Amino acid sequence: MNKQQTVQLSHGGGGVEMNHLIRHLFWQRFGNDILNQAEDAATLNIPSPLAMTTDSFTVSPHFFAGGNIGTLAVAGTCNDLAMVAAKPSYLSCSFIIEEGTLISELEAIVDAMATELAVGQTQIVCGDTKVVPRGMADKVFINTTGIGAIQKADVSAHRIMAGDVILVSRDIGCHGACILAARESLRLAHPIISDCAVLWPVVEALLADSIDIHAMRDATRGGLSAVLNEWCQSSGLQLAIQEAQIPVDDAVRGICELCGFEPCDLANEGTFVIAVPATQAQRTLDILHQFHSQAAVIGEAVSLSPAKPVLHTAWGSRRYLDFPAGELLPRIC
Amino acid sequence: MNKQQTVQLSHGGGGVEMNHLIRHLFWQRFGNDILNQAEDAATLNIPSPLAMTTDSFTVSPHFFAGGNIGTLAVAGTCNDLAMVAAKPSYLSCSFIIEEGTLISELEAIVDAMATELAVGQTQIVCGDTKVVPRGMADKVFINTTGIGAIQKADVSAHRIMAGDVILVSRDIGCHGACILAARESLRLAHPIISDCAVLWPVVEALLADSIDIHAMRDATRGGLSAVLNEWCQSSGLQLAIQEAQIPVDDAVRGICELCGFEPCDLANEGTFVIAVPATQAQRTLDILHQFHSQAAVIGEAVSLSPAKPVLHTAWGSRRYLDFPAGELLPRIC
Repeated sequence: MNKQQTVQLSHGGGGVEMNHLIRHLFWQRFGNDILNQAEDAATLNIPSPLAMTTDSFTVSPHFFAGGNIGTLAVAGTCNDLAMVAAKPSYLSCSFIIEEGTLISELEAIVDAMATELAVGQTQIVCGDTKVVPRGMADKVFINTTGIGAIQKADVSAHRIMAGDVILVSRDIGCHGACILAARESLRLAHPIISDCAVLWPVVEALLADSIDIHAMRDATRGGLSAVLNEWCQSSGLQLAIQEAQIPVDDAVRGICELCGFEPCDLANEGTFVIAVPATQAQRTLDILHQFHSQAAVIGEAVSLSPAKPVLHTAWGSRRYLDFPAGELLPRIC
Repeated sequence: MNKQQTVQLSHGGGGVEMNHLIRHLFWQRFGNDILNQAEDAATLNIPSPLAMTTDSFTVSPHFFAGGNIGTLAVAGTCNDLAMVAAKPSYLSCSFIIEEGTLISELEAIVDAMATELAVGQTQIVCGDTKVVPRGMADKVFINTTGIGAIQKADVSAHRIMAGDVILVSRDIGCHGACILAARESLRLAHPIISDCAVLWPVVEALLADSIDIHAMRDATRGGLSAVLNEWCQSSGLQLAIQEAQIPVDDAVRGICELCGFEPCDLANEGTFVIAVPATQAQRTLDILHQFHSQAAVIGEAVSLSPAKPVLHTAWGSRRYLDFPAGELLPRIC
C-alpha cells in the first residue's frame, strides 16, 4: 500500500501536512464562508434561545447498510437539536484518526457527512483533527456538537400530560439490528438497513402545521425502552403502551430472537417518539406518514401509579417495560 | 483490582449503569441548572455575535506536571474562544473512555476540569459518554466545544497592520517540553511545568483596559512558528522578530537541544501571541506582566516582502522562521 494513501502522524501535528489534509479533505467537502475564515473560532449570528448538544461517535463497523460513521455523526447531533424543536443551525466537527487509516475511507465518511448536512440544511463551521498512533484508536472517532435556533419553546418530557398520545415515527430497532447483523456476520436474505437519518425535515413539517408537540426524543442508545422510562420519570405519569402497535420489522424481530435482544432495547438513529395532545394525534400521524409508512400511535399517558411504562399485550396481560441494563451493544453509535 | 473501580462497557450502553456513572461522576462535579435538566439538548441564552470552537484531546501521558488531559480540555477550548475576544460562555463535553480505565483516574480528570471551569467563569451544559472495548482507545479522549459571547468585534489576523507590535504572554514551549520530558522519562533537576491554563482572565483585563487588540492566537500545536507563519499569510505582512527577545526557559532550551527540537515549534497550552498598535504596546506589556513576568515584546509587522516571519539574531544575521513540518509530537494535546 502506498504510504500516501493512509493517514500519517504528521497529518495531526499542526504543521504543513495537517494544513494540507484539512484543506483538501475537509474544506473541499464542508467549505462555506464561515469555515473558510479559518480563525481559532467561528463567528456566528443566531437568535436566542438556542439549543446546544454534543455527541461522539465510535460505531463499529464504521461502514454498515444504510450509512457510515459520518452519516451518524451528522444525523445524531442534528436529531438531538430537532428533538427540542431547534433547527440545526451550526455544527462543529472533530476527528480522532488512527495512524494508517485509509484516506479513501476518510473521504467516504466525509462525503456521507456532506450529504447529511444538506438534508439537515446545516453547515460545519469549525473543526479539529487529531491523529493518534496505530492501536491507540479504532480508525476514526468523530465528535459533532451542534447549536440550533429553537422554533418552539418548552418541548420537554416535563410537559407530557395525562391523555397525551404517544407515537413513534417508524418501525423500531433497525440501526441496532443492522449493526448486530454486521458484527455477527449474519447472512440475511434481506439485509436490515439502518434507520439513520436527519429528522429535521419531519420536525419542520410538524411545526409548520402548528402541532403542539409536548415532547420528542429520538430513541438512540437504550432504544424505545430508555425513552419511555425517562419520560415516566420526568412526567410522573404512567405510559400505557399497546405492544401490538409498536412497529417492528420481521427481520429485526428475527435477529432479536436469534441474539437474545428485545426490539424495544435496540438503538435507533433516525426514529423518534413524540407526545402530543389527543386532539392532534391523527394530524400528527398523517404528517409522520408522509415521511414513513410505519409511523404509528403506540399508547398514551395516564394518571396511574407507578410512573413506569406498561406494555399491554394483545391477549390482555400487562408487564412493565424496564430500563435496559447490562452490556447492550457497545459501539452502536 | 475490584471490577467496581474500573469503567465497564455497560457504562456506555445507555442504560442503568451509564445513568449512574453520569450522575455520580459528571453531574456531581459539573452540575448546574442547565446541565441538570438532562434534555437531549441544553437551552441557552447568549447574545450574538457568538464564537464557536471545538477541540478533541488525546494527550499522552494523560497526567503530566502542571495538569492532566482534563485541564487541557477546558483550557484549550476556553482559549480558542478568548483568542477571538469571546467570553467562554458555555461548553459541551464528550468522553470516549476505554473499558478498564480506573474510575479514580477519571475522577481526577473531571476534578481538574471543574477547577479550570471556575477559572474560565464558565460551565458545561451538555455532554456525552461513550465506552469502547479494551485496546480500541487509550484510556480517555475528551472533546470540548465552546460557544462564547464576543466582547470585541473583528479580532483577527486580517487586522494586523504594518507597525503593529507583536508580544508573547510568557516564555514559550513549556507544554511541549513537559510532555517530551515525560515521554522520554527524563529526570530533570527542575521539572518543566506545562503552561496549560485558561487565558480568559488576562484577555478580560486587556479588554477592560480598552486595548485595541488586532489579533491574538494561542500558540498550541505548531507553536510560535505556526502562529507567526499563519499571521504572515493572513495579513500579507512580514513579521520582524528579534530572536533574543523570545522568552525561553533554560530547561526548555536544554530539552530542545537534547531532542533536536526548536522551542518555537513546541506546543503551548496557555501562552498566546498578540498584535497591537505600537502606541499601546507598553500598556499591553504592563497588563501581561500582571499575569506572567516573562511576557515580552518580540517584534513588529513590517511592509516588506516576502510575507514571512524573519528572525533577527543578536549578531545581526537574519533567517526565515518556517512553518514546522514532519512528525512533531503526536498526542501533545
